[in-house]
Amino acid sequence: MLVHTDYLWFNTKQKTEFIRITDQVAAIVKASAVTDGIALVSAMHITSGIYVNDWEDGLIHDFQIWLEKLAPSGLDYRHHQTGEDNADAHLKRTIMGHQVVVPITAAALDLGPWEQVFYAEFDGQRKKRVVVKVMGI
Amino acid sequence: MLVHTDYLWFNTKQKTEFIRITDQVAAIVKASAVTDGIALVSAMHITSGIYVNDWEDGLIHDFQIWLEKLAPSGLDYRHHQTGEDNADAHLKRTIMGHQVVVPITAAALDLGPWEQVFYAEFDGQRKKRVVVKVMGI
Amino acid sequence: MLVHTDYLWFNTKQKTEFIRITDQVAAIVKASAVTDGIALVSAMHITSGIYVNDWEDGLIHDFQIWLEKLAPSGLDYRHHQTGEDNADAHLKRTIMGHQVVVPITAAALDLGPWEQVFYAEFDGQRKKRVVVKVMGI
Repeated sequence: MLVHTDYLWFNTKQKTEFIRITDQVAAIVKASAVTDGIALVSAMHITSGIYVNDWEDGLIHDFQIWLEKLAPSGLDYRHHQTGEDNADAHLKRTIMGHQVVVPITAAALDLGPWEQVFYAEFDGQRKKRVVVKVMGI
Repeated sequence: MLVHTDYLWFNTKQKTEFIRITDQVAAIVKASAVTDGIALVSAMHITSGIYVNDWEDGLIHDFQIWLEKLAPSGLDYRHHQTGEDNADAHLKRTIMGHQVVVPITAAALDLGPWEQVFYAEFDGQRKKRVVVKVMGI
Repeated sequence: MLVHTDYLWFNTKQKTEFIRITDQVAAIVKASAVTDGIALVSAMHITSGIYVNDWEDGLIHDFQIWLEKLAPSGLDYRHHQTGEDNADAHLKRTIMGHQVVVPITAAALDLGPWEQVFYAEFDGQRKKRVVVKVMGI
């Protein structure tokens, strides 16, 4: 059994930014030498997420508008009494999910035709990290 | 260590349809010969999801009404400028989740008394696929 | 390859209660002797969830207010025709997620600086269970 771990770093220019990371995950899987197994891809910060969906700018825009509607910024969140101002980022990342498990088959990510892995930043402009844990044979 | 992969195919009659797949997942786990481990069950299309919840028609109806409220169809989504009309399906599946990891203990799915695995279709009436990746000993 | 399984039991005093379980998960991982791998932490009941986020009482309050807004209790849910009154709990747990996979590196939970694992109860005051499945080397 093989277990391989690596990390991806992000420091986005915008506060909110979605970044496709399928290729980086695939590169880590290749380095792991795992040909059959899984790759856990998990945000290590609690105001960012990982999700799988379409690589289409219009839809990414729709996601961001929709998340702002469901979990608005600027409300009088109790979390803000600590001096923070990012409660909405915690909520938004919860809707998107903070991790995915990507299956690996025949030495490649076993993704459907339109599946792409994304990093979703909701409180960026600082260094943040994602762990990738590959396991299999 | 054993790793076993199989796929489930769906072609629903309705655009939106939730289908219980616990038995199909259990059958794949049995075929894998894994007695202690996990089964990743993951939608390979980005307008369908996988979730665990109650096998009760009333609740399934409630889920569908609720998702329509949180992520309505028919809005002027930017994704629709590509010619697509299913942006809401992408959003709805995000709320439900696109994958689950089912624990396997003593050669069976280690589920609680009411846990059932479901396939949630939001843009059906065409062939779509789910991957099941079983790992363990 | 090592596979180790244990269960956590909860019987909350309140109907809704979020409980930090990072230490209990770490103790199970230690007992497993796995030093590199993953721990699946999964609610076995369909009205409770598992999530990773901040250990800050204000934010926990914000989460609960927000979930009540997105999935209100007391509506005329069809699920209630079965005699149940907890449809909202099923919806709320769906937003929070019902499971997480925690990476294990160097014999410890490989969590970011603010990541904490929580049990989220939405229909408590009775015995409920969480499975922890540890796999790795």
